[in-house]
Amino acid sequence: MSGVTARRSRTGGVLVGTVADIGEFALIDAVVSRLPSGPDVLLGPGDDAAVVAALDGRVVVTTDVLVEGVHFRRDWSEPADVGHKAAAQNLADIAAMGARPTALVVALVAPGRLEVAWALGFVDGLAAEAGRAGAAVAGGDVVSGDQVVVSVTALGSLEGRDPVTRAGARPGDVVAVRGRLGWSAGGLAVLSRGFRSPRVLVDAHRRPEPDYAAGPQAASLGATSMIDISDGLLADLSHVARSSGVAVQLEIEAFDIAQPLKDAAAALGRDPIDWVVTGGEDHALVATFPPDARLPKNWSVIGAVVDRPDLGDVPLVTVSGLPPGTYTGPGGWRHFSTDSGSGG
Amino acid sequence: MSGVTARRSRTGGVLVGTVADIGEFALIDAVVSRLPSGPDVLLGPGDDAAVVAALDGRVVVTTDVLVEGVHFRRDWSEPADVGHKAAAQNLADIAAMGARPTALVVALVAPGRLEVAWALGFVDGLAAEAGRAGAAVAGGDVVSGDQVVVSVTALGSLEGRDPVTRAGARPGDVVAVRGRLGWSAGGLAVLSRGFRSPRVLVDAHRRPEPDYAAGPQAASLGATSMIDISDGLLADLSHVARSSGVAVQLEIEAFDIAQPLKDAAAALGRDPIDWVVTGGEDHALVATFPPDARLPKNWSVIGAVVDRPDLGDVPLVTVSGLPPGTYTGPGGWRHFSTDSGSGG
Repeated sequence: MSGVTARRSRTGGVLVGTVADIGEFALIDAVVSRLPSGPDVLLGPGDDAAVVAALDGRVVVTTDVLVEGVHFRRDWSEPADVGHKAAAQNLADIAAMGARPTALVVALVAPGRLEVAWALGFVDGLAAEAGRAGAAVAGGDVVSGDQVVVSVTALGSLEGRDPVTRAGARPGDVVAVRGRLGWSAGGLAVLSRGFRSPRVLVDAHRRPEPDYAAGPQAASLGATSMIDISDGLLADLSHVARSSGVAVQLEIEAFDIAQPLKDAAAALGRDPIDWVVTGGEDHALVATFPPDARLPKNWSVIGAVVDRPDLGDVPLVTVSGLPPGTYTGPGGWRHFSTDSGSGG
Repeated sequence: MSGVTARRSRTGGVLVGTVADIGEFALIDAVVSRLPSGPDVLLGPGDDAAVVAALDGRVVVTTDVLVEGVHFRRDWSEPADVGHKAAAQNLADIAAMGARPTALVVALVAPGRLEVAWALGFVDGLAAEAGRAGAAVAGGDVVSGDQVVVSVTALGSLEGRDPVTRAGARPGDVVAVRGRLGWSAGGLAVLSRGFRSPRVLVDAHRRPEPDYAAGPQAASLGATSMIDISDGLLADLSHVARSSGVAVQLEIEAFDIAQPLKDAAAALGRDPIDWVVTGGEDHALVATFPPDARLPKNWSVIGAVVDRPDLGDVPLVTVSGLPPGTYTGPGGWRHFSTDSGSGG
C-alpha cells in the first residue's frame, strides 16, 4: 500500500488532463486527500498499511472487482456512479453477514489515457457511499494498466453477534427481503435499448442503494440466514437453500411490482417479474427468520423455508409451486417466464 | 465476494484449456478448493464475506495490485511466481507495521484466453507464500477482463503492540536492514538483457523472500520506525525521513555486496551499488532503533538518523555524506552513480 501512502504531503496543483499528463503520483496524492476518515480507522493512509478497529476481536472481510466493459461502461455511468457501485456491492456483502461496515481499501488500475477527473469522480462516489454506510476509506493503491479496474475490499464489525451465514435456514422459517428487486435489471434493460428513462430505474442501475443498517438489524431480529442479492433473487436464494440443506417456496402474490418496472416492461415487451426474481445488483438483503420473529415493516415476507424433498436434481427454489426455470449451470437461471410461463 | 463463495460444492472435472473453455464458475470452484485455511480464519470462503480473528481489537490492512505487462510478464515469470510475489508484497507491508500476517483475500481478473493452468498455478503460488507467512487465504473474487490483474488485500495482527509507522525515527537512532537488497533489481536487469543467469538473481526477482517474522521481531526490539523496501532503499528511507522530520546518513562501507550482484553487474557494465540502494521489490525491511537496542545478527546496521538540517530542498538521505542523486519527483530517484559518481 506504499503507493498511495508515501506522498500524502505533496498534494497540490491543478489536476486536469489525463493520468499520463499529471503522473500516477500526483493522482495518488489527489486521491488520498479525498479519502474520508472515521472513528474506526486508528491509522489511515500514510504508511505501509492501515489499522482499523475490530472491537470484538474479529473482522469481517470481503473483496470484489469491477472491470470496465464487463461491470460498467463509462458511457452509461458517471465516474461517481462507478465509485458508488463499487463501494455498495462490497458494503452490502458486509451487511449481509449481519455486520456493520467499518472501512474500505481500494485499488484503481488507471490507464494513462484516463481523465484525471474520472479517477477523482470515482473516488468521490466511493467515499460518499462509504460515508453513507458509516465506513471510512483507510487506504489503497493506484497503478497503471490497459483497462480501468476497480478492486475494493470492505471490512466490518459483528459487534459481538454471530455472523449470519447462508447455511442457517431451517424449515418453517419465513423468507423476507429488504430493498428493491429488479430495479437495477430494469434500468440496465432500458439502457441496453438506448433509452434513458424511466429515470428512477436507470438511477437504480447506476447507483444501487442498499440499506446497510438492515443487516445488523436482521441479525438482531434473529435471522437464521442472510445473503445480499447480487446474482438475482432466485440464484442467491438457491445458494442459501443449498448451503442450508433446505428448499425455498416463494409466493408470486407477495411481490409488489412497482409502477416504473411495469411501465418499462410494457415499453420493452418484457415481463417485470423476470427482473424481480432474476435481476441482480440491487443488493437488497434476503434473510430467513424464525416464524415467530416480529419483522418491522421495512422487511417484506415473500415465502417460506421448507424441507428439501430429496437429494435429486429438484429445484431448490420454487415460485408459487412452479420450478422457476431450468438451471443452466452454476449461478445461471434462465428467465423465469421463458420456462414456466407463469410470470405475473 | 459471492462469486468465489457460492459454488464451492461444485468443484470437479478436469480443468484444462482456457478460462473461456471451462467458464468462470468452474475456475472459481477450483480456486476455492486450493485456498489454505488457518487458525485465524473463523469463517472462510463460502459466504458473502469471511471472518478473521483480530484478537487485540485491531486489524492491520493493506492492498496492492499487480498488472500484467506492468508488474509482471508471463514470459518471464511462472504463474506460481506471480502468485508468490503478489502475496509477498502485501505480507511484507503487514510485517513492516510490526504485525503478524493472518489472512489474504485475492481478486483475479482473468481474460477468457488465459490458460486455466496459469490461474491455478497463480493461486498455488499465492497460497504457498501465504502459508510460509502463517496466513490463510480467506476468500476472493474472479472476474473476466482484457488483461490479467491481481489484487491482494492482506490482514494482520499487532498482537497488542503499537504499530511501527514511518513517523517515529529520532535523531541518534541506528538504521538497520533485514533482508537482501538489490537482488530483485539485479535479476530484472539480467532478464531485461535476455539472460537467465545468475539464476539466484533471477529467482530473487521472480520470488522475493521477505522475512515476515522480522517485522514483529523489530517491534519487540523497540523499532521506532519501519518500512518495507518496495521502491528502493533510498526512496523508502526518504519516506521515513520525511514522515519523521529527520535525515538519514547511510554508510557505503556498511553494504556487503554479494558476489552474484558483483558478477551480474560486471557482465552488464553496471555498478552493483545502484541495485542495492535503488532496487525495489526485494521487500527487505528497514527500521530505525534506539542506539542502545541489541540487534540480533540478522539485522545489519547501515547508517544513522540525524537531525534534518533545515526545511529547504536538502537530501533527506545521504550516502557516505554525498547526496545520493537528484530527486526527480515523488518516488523517483535517478540512479545513484549517474548523479554522484560515488558508486561502490
